[in-house]
Amino acid sequence: MHASFKTIGLLGRSQQPGLAAILQELADLLVARGLIVLLEDRLGELLPGHPYVAANRDDLGQQADLVVVVGGDGSLLSAARTLAKYNTPVVGVNRGRLGFLADINPDELSKQVNAILDGDYQRDSRFLLDASVLRDDKIVARADALNDVVVNSGTSAQMIEYELYINDVFVYRQRADGLIVSTPTGSTAYSLSGGGPIMHPTLDAVVLVPMFPHALSSRPIVVDGSSEIRIDILERNRIHPPVTCDGQVNMTVRPGDSVLISKKPHRLTLLHPKSQDFYASCRDKLRWSNALDG
Amino acid sequence: MHASFKTIGLLGRSQQPGLAAILQELADLLVARGLIVLLEDRLGELLPGHPYVAANRDDLGQQADLVVVVGGDGSLLSAARTLAKYNTPVVGVNRGRLGFLADINPDELSKQVNAILDGDYQRDSRFLLDASVLRDDKIVARADALNDVVVNSGTSAQMIEYELYINDVFVYRQRADGLIVSTPTGSTAYSLSGGGPIMHPTLDAVVLVPMFPHALSSRPIVVDGSSEIRIDILERNRIHPPVTCDGQVNMTVRPGDSVLISKKPHRLTLLHPKSQDFYASCRDKLRWSNALDG
Amino acid sequence: MHASFKTIGLLGRSQQPGLAAILQELADLLVARGLIVLLEDRLGELLPGHPYVAANRDDLGQQADLVVVVGGDGSLLSAARTLAKYNTPVVGVNRGRLGFLADINPDELSKQVNAILDGDYQRDSRFLLDASVLRDDKIVARADALNDVVVNSGTSAQMIEYELYINDVFVYRQRADGLIVSTPTGSTAYSLSGGGPIMHPTLDAVVLVPMFPHALSSRPIVVDGSSEIRIDILERNRIHPPVTCDGQVNMTVRPGDSVLISKKPHRLTLLHPKSQDFYASCRDKLRWSNALDG
Amino acid sequence: MHASFKTIGLLGRSQQPGLAAILQELADLLVARGLIVLLEDRLGELLPGHPYVAANRDDLGQQADLVVVVGGDGSLLSAARTLAKYNTPVVGVNRGRLGFLADINPDELSKQVNAILDGDYQRDSRFLLDASVLRDDKIVARADALNDVVVNSGTSAQMIEYELYINDVFVYRQRADGLIVSTPTGSTAYSLSGGGPIMHPTLDAVVLVPMFPHALSSRPIVVDGSSEIRIDILERNRIHPPVTCDGQVNMTVRPGDSVLISKKPHRLTLLHPKSQDFYASCRDKLRWSNALDG
Repeated sequence: MHASFKTIGLLGRSQQPGLAAILQELADLLVARGLIVLLEDRLGELLPGHPYVAANRDDLGQQADLVVVVGGDGSLLSAARTLAKYNTPVVGVNRGRLGFLADINPDELSKQVNAILDGDYQRDSRFLLDASVLRDDKIVARADALNDVVVNSGTSAQMIEYELYINDVFVYRQRADGLIVSTPTGSTAYSLSGGGPIMHPTLDAVVLVPMFPHALSSRPIVVDGSSEIRIDILERNRIHPPVTCDGQVNMTVRPGDSVLISKKPHRLTLLHPKSQDFYASCRDKLRWSNALDG
Repeated sequence: MHASFKTIGLLGRSQQPGLAAILQELADLLVARGLIVLLEDRLGELLPGHPYVAANRDDLGQQADLVVVVGGDGSLLSAARTLAKYNTPVVGVNRGRLGFLADINPDELSKQVNAILDGDYQRDSRFLLDASVLRDDKIVARADALNDVVVNSGTSAQMIEYELYINDVFVYRQRADGLIVSTPTGSTAYSLSGGGPIMHPTLDAVVLVPMFPHALSSRPIVVDGSSEIRIDILERNRIHPPVTCDGQVNMTVRPGDSVLISKKPHRLTLLHPKSQDFYASCRDKLRWSNALDG
Repeated sequence: MHASFKTIGLLGRSQQPGLAAILQELADLLVARGLIVLLEDRLGELLPGHPYVAANRDDLGQQADLVVVVGGDGSLLSAARTLAKYNTPVVGVNRGRLGFLADINPDELSKQVNAILDGDYQRDSRFLLDASVLRDDKIVARADALNDVVVNSGTSAQMIEYELYINDVFVYRQRADGLIVSTPTGSTAYSLSGGGPIMHPTLDAVVLVPMFPHALSSRPIVVDGSSEIRIDILERNRIHPPVTCDGQVNMTVRPGDSVLISKKPHRLTLLHPKSQDFYASCRDKLRWSNALDG
Repeated sequence: MHASFKTIGLLGRSQQPGLAAILQELADLLVARGLIVLLEDRLGELLPGHPYVAANRDDLGQQADLVVVVGGDGSLLSAARTLAKYNTPVVGVNRGRLGFLADINPDELSKQVNAILDGDYQRDSRFLLDASVLRDDKIVARADALNDVVVNSGTSAQMIEYELYINDVFVYRQRADGLIVSTPTGSTAYSLSGGGPIMHPTLDAVVLVPMFPHALSSRPIVVDGSSEIRIDILERNRIHPPVTCDGQVNMTVRPGDSVLISKKPHRLTLLHPKSQDFYASCRDKLRWSNALDG
């Protein structure tokens, strides 16, 4: 057994049908291996009278040597922003369909989790973005994203106007529905729907994808992952655009504000079954194997 | 002089800088030709003590033989939805930059307006869309669009799910930020930013452009202009998506509602200088003449 | 039985594995119904000693009341260009995967063919394009296309430069790898890979899709089906670009030549099983039902 | 003066109109500064009786401390593949329009060249790709590219089928017109026309852009610059696809061959005026400053 995995956290979104059964299967497997199980406090009601230690997400992150998130890429995204702070490795169990992040299949749950506990896994490190809102020279709001930071007008009835600066160099002034700033991890999510490229997870880069830009020659731009990105929301805007991180509305900006986006110092560690690789996930999820007329 | 143009309406958005001067130049030109001038009532304050007949948009539409709209494509779009009801021909004067709809240049105002009054013009007929919201078998809201009807989630933090039917035939169930339904007139506006094709103004067709669709194989679809389009907003949505017509939020739909979109019986008649044609506008506005490296 | 179908032609590409068995099944079914079978002469060797009348494609087109093409969209495209001349209705049997044109499944061969012979079908009329090469005011080559006419440089090492005119109106001068001119039928084939929209088969329109255009603002343009399209190959080109119709190299143009493209007077009549509609084919072939993450 | 620039090479395509005058202006400027001028041998006839040392490209690369290429991005691309071998810094003088690589304006020739000779410049290092054809375990052809390596069918009438491997991991099997493998330098050239992202020149990455892929979900992929890319041309292809490097046909592959693409060990050093930056070139050449309707 992999020496370092002694305390294992279990985490998920409580509303998922069938979650209790998967949690029980996981807990049984872990106990049988003599491991300590920490159960996210919100999940306690799913396993009434359970003997495991309840903990909130932060405590889980601090105390567990490994966290298993049940529920697909959405659940994992949400957990990742907390767990990355504690550098806790994460394994994702998907529900039904394979995810890019949650790639353990519930049908092979014990086989694949046992393999990982035996040390038979691939380690994959993903960086997160830090998004801050700067107003009158002060940071007034801050949030993290594993996938993407999106600044958009919040409505199809209005565009926003902004100026983009990368490492303090002026890039362009643009009118658009918004701008997506995506990590390689996020490049297969919202950014892809907007015409952004797929970026391999190990690439140290960020892509900026304009949303419905007014200028037809505006295209996705890929820059170094360590770039400092600044989006100045022009004073002339008459809206208060939302800033979303991984699809959650976290902050609202006002005309005159700037949104600052840069890489966070800590990273998320994902563990994958050895059988899985990024391109296999692409083939499965993007259906590359299926040509138009075969 | 063209016999039918005896009463001419003048219309525009009152906040535009320099509007008074253009209105006065137009009115003087019309009076010099012995024509009756109707001035949109909201514009009266720009020409204090003016001798012209004031009228609201509906009266202008009913009484004028020709309406001149000053202000670019946005002003013309807004006026068009009223004027089309009365089948009043419209001429658009742009401010600064050429528009697709407003293609009289203020620098050549008297020359080009005189030419049109002399009967030296091209007539161009554009259809409008009728958008209705159906709830419990009743139409609860209705609006018109010359460019496009957009059903969207209103936020980048949520997709909407809908089913699309064309002439009662099921097309697809889709998760996306929304759907743009555009006329040929609108095909060079928002639809184009979303990857829709340019459609010649005389084409009797409508294009449906999915916005950030989850399925990468979802593409713009062009159908006959007489198609009955129905977008069923699935019950499972947890948002109340706005419906915008020509960029104005006109209606809000609830889960379970349907949006019905079809061609209106009346059309907008646009008059253009003979020197102008659609592809010339494209070259100018889309900068086709400018290749990447000349 | 549908009165008009007395003589039935059978046609296909002879190299397909398993073709003999399908032809025999079809012939038996037709003979059992008392119909006359015409077999394409090239297919005779597949059914040694067969009792059917052998005929070439032109004779088949003239004599048959209905032609069944076995082999997928490619086979049907090739047959269609001949059969449209004689206005002979065509039914397509696909091999393995559903086609947009060949939509009878070999597993349901007798059921679906019998239904069609019983008059239980949908009739669908598709227009073809006529492509001619004009040199020194003379037509020097001519070919037909059901899907698309493609003028391209024939190599990624060179662009071609051309001017596009629609109904004698100048559209643009462009440097690109080439230009695709597609019918609605072809809009789900090569044009779609190049970013063109899907057009419903009944739409009377043609789409022009630039291939790798140098100007980023160049987009697909949809025009009325009756448009006269002219592509002037500029004198300054140093290549002799091929012109392909439905993926066959039919003609070569020289600098200074023009390619003229317009609708042909005759159309192809396709018969479909009643269960099939265009959007169902799209869902199946473009995998619309498969969202990125379900 | 910058100590290291003592011997300066002059290079260009001899057919350019007005080249002699620019070469003379450059030579006079260099001689006035007491520098040694090496003139590309092919250019000698443009300056009859000139006193400069004639040299071929390889000798220029070996002996010069700095090479000035006159003629735009195309000329610079061609020179770069030779000069990178000797690690000779290069300055590009454009003709008429600004280039991404050749960014010295002839109108400011002496001012900008003097500034560079004074040491007032930005140094920019660009990697090149090595493309090899592997047949029966032997490299049978090899070429370099600063912009891109393109494997394509060479005709719109045929697709090629290939399998893509990155670092020996299978990515996909694809039918397409071809595949573009582009450096950041090439990302604003052919790759961009094909829907690839813009990549900042300092990014250590390569983008793979499928050309007219049959699978609609196939998208550009960005991978680390040090990736080993292998394109296996399937045996079933019936064509001999050309491989072009920077738009020159360099090699032809056969069914069964592999194309190997990786970063070269040496890089091209470009010197730029301090006033110029990458995004300024983008704004100018891609006309970002020009919105659709201002």
